[in-house]
Amino acid sequence: MSDYLISEQARGPSVGEVAPQSVDFPSLSLDSGERLEPVTIAYETYGELNEERSNAVLIAHALSGDAHAAGYHQGDDRPGWWETMIGPGKGFDTDRFFVICSNVIGGCKGSTGPISISPATGTEYGLGFPVVTVGDMVRAQKLLVDHLGIERLLSVSGGSMGGMQALQWTVAYPEAVASCIPIAATAKHSPMQIAFNEVGRLAIMSDPKWNNGDYYGGPAPDSGLAVARMIGHITYLSDESMRAKFGRRLRDKETVGYDFTMDFEVESYLRHQGEVFTRRFDANTYLYVTKALDYFDLSGGHGPLEEAFRDLPADMRFLVIAFSSDWLYPPYQSKHIVRALKGNGIDCSYLEMRSSYGHDAFLLENKDLTRMVWHFLETTAKQWGVRLG
Amino acid sequence: MSDYLISEQARGPSVGEVAPQSVDFPSLSLDSGERLEPVTIAYETYGELNEERSNAVLIAHALSGDAHAAGYHQGDDRPGWWETMIGPGKGFDTDRFFVICSNVIGGCKGSTGPISISPATGTEYGLGFPVVTVGDMVRAQKLLVDHLGIERLLSVSGGSMGGMQALQWTVAYPEAVASCIPIAATAKHSPMQIAFNEVGRLAIMSDPKWNNGDYYGGPAPDSGLAVARMIGHITYLSDESMRAKFGRRLRDKETVGYDFTMDFEVESYLRHQGEVFTRRFDANTYLYVTKALDYFDLSGGHGPLEEAFRDLPADMRFLVIAFSSDWLYPPYQSKHIVRALKGNGIDCSYLEMRSSYGHDAFLLENKDLTRMVWHFLETTAKQWGVRLG
Repeated sequence: MSDYLISEQARGPSVGEVAPQSVDFPSLSLDSGERLEPVTIAYETYGELNEERSNAVLIAHALSGDAHAAGYHQGDDRPGWWETMIGPGKGFDTDRFFVICSNVIGGCKGSTGPISISPATGTEYGLGFPVVTVGDMVRAQKLLVDHLGIERLLSVSGGSMGGMQALQWTVAYPEAVASCIPIAATAKHSPMQIAFNEVGRLAIMSDPKWNNGDYYGGPAPDSGLAVARMIGHITYLSDESMRAKFGRRLRDKETVGYDFTMDFEVESYLRHQGEVFTRRFDANTYLYVTKALDYFDLSGGHGPLEEAFRDLPADMRFLVIAFSSDWLYPPYQSKHIVRALKGNGIDCSYLEMRSSYGHDAFLLENKDLTRMVWHFLETTAKQWGVRLG
Repeated sequence: MSDYLISEQARGPSVGEVAPQSVDFPSLSLDSGERLEPVTIAYETYGELNEERSNAVLIAHALSGDAHAAGYHQGDDRPGWWETMIGPGKGFDTDRFFVICSNVIGGCKGSTGPISISPATGTEYGLGFPVVTVGDMVRAQKLLVDHLGIERLLSVSGGSMGGMQALQWTVAYPEAVASCIPIAATAKHSPMQIAFNEVGRLAIMSDPKWNNGDYYGGPAPDSGLAVARMIGHITYLSDESMRAKFGRRLRDKETVGYDFTMDFEVESYLRHQGEVFTRRFDANTYLYVTKALDYFDLSGGHGPLEEAFRDLPADMRFLVIAFSSDWLYPPYQSKHIVRALKGNGIDCSYLEMRSSYGHDAFLLENKDLTRMVWHFLETTAKQWGVRLG
């Protein structure tokens, strides 16, 4: 997701001040066959869990996100990354629902990842951290949800990688999920999505400061990470939104400079985005999380996607959302999910929203998105007889 | 353009063995106000110039192209980059036309560029080479065309940056051009096009081996150039063609490796493309040529594009071609050109070809493209009373 969006969305009612939380578990088994021992999950919650523990909604974050989805940390003037959607009266209405968001394993924002200390070596894991999958991320979230005493989530949702985790939840734990709202997501990474990630990884790994992942005592591979982020950032926007936002406007000059300093506003914007990102994100985590994305294939690589959904309970409900100008996770990928669900007779609504903002559209203030999610959750709660505040 | 295409297109009649040529000029003035003294233009020609010197067609190359557009150099088994379109009976029919292609200034394939020796220092220019524009490239080509004794080109054509040069010809030398065939081109680089180029430049400039452009005595910034090429390469393809070509096929393995070696065929393909490119291309040239692309704005940044075409002769003809799946130079950019031409009453045909191959489509064998170009040139020759072989 784009940093610039977060600061623009601090409007309307908010859950207010929130505190980071975390919980440790002795062990997590991974798809690779390895185990993480121990494992920490950083998370936040917003709203109140009702007495029946039946009004919980899990939000999963995207590549560069974290557990801080809404509200403000003490002293911060910047809200969580989905402040537009989570709060009193918002799409994920914290007056009615208990909203949970956790940092993925492999991340760098509190959950166990490559920057954590390996008990075996006493130093940061670095590349010694096992490769994790979206399945592993969700398995870790299940530990957290069990820990919170929640038997069934009323809904799981997220955009981009968050949507992929939400889909994974329905397949991995069909009895623990009542509904799912995957947004701007896919059931499997396409070769173009893999290709952009691979170039980003190579930019990091080509930076001599990366040092095979062992850089925590010294300078970090900021140049490589910035290039990776800039590639990603372009893919989150759209041709149309970039033309509207930047056009060919020059940066602080009357004419082009006939040199290799920056001439255009879009150049300085992108460089700034790359630079800011290196201050808040870890290069190894970028490698691990993009790899998890590329590995994601809900069908397990065998047979049609329809098979993957065969064991879903008949009363599970989906709201699948895509954005018209999202060329990184194009609407056809969401439609593919919808067709596979319908093929299993699953209750599924599909919404393709007109937007010029590309993949990032899911992070922007959007009244239609808010209304659709609010009503979908309301109906789901009614269907399951959930008592709301 | 993509290297893989060139080796796949060695079919059908060919101009056969061709020899590189070059010519020196004492001086070339540049848009920046600087001068190049002296300047060498590397070029090739195919077919015969008729007695009236009226059957010449100039082909301009794309970012990574060169003067070797057709036929074979002695001992080579790989033809020129537009072998599909240039040759006996082909779109640019060498039985009828005299076809010229030259390496752009700033290039690294024989024309004066950053790898050339600066007379002032006695060493390679490196970053001491002046920044050049598409206008400068065309000004250099005009010297060559004058040198060949050709007063008026029957046509100028090219794909991508080649199409941009073709358009520039019509505006800079309207009396020296009878017709123009810009393919998969634009009248100005969009912010998205600039953004992808800027990230590529930053990847090169972040490579410590780049050394501020001064690397000709030592190791070249191959890692940075490979990353830049890989970014470019993805943008030349399409989501659809990548799915058809690679899908999620693994590379020499039964299952994913749970490590950071390459898992997917698309990854090894891209890395190979990046690596191969570093063997044939210069990193500084990549900087200069992408900068020229980003500077390109036929309207000069003032007023509507229609103004730029106001002084075209009434008998100039255009065939503007775009490809449906080209998301880097999308059809709307070609339509923009067409509208501005029609607004001036210029004879202009527009062809949007259905293709799944993205921007690279212009390099692929395409019977419709061949037929359209052949007939357009035939009609243009008739209109101008040109005697053909």
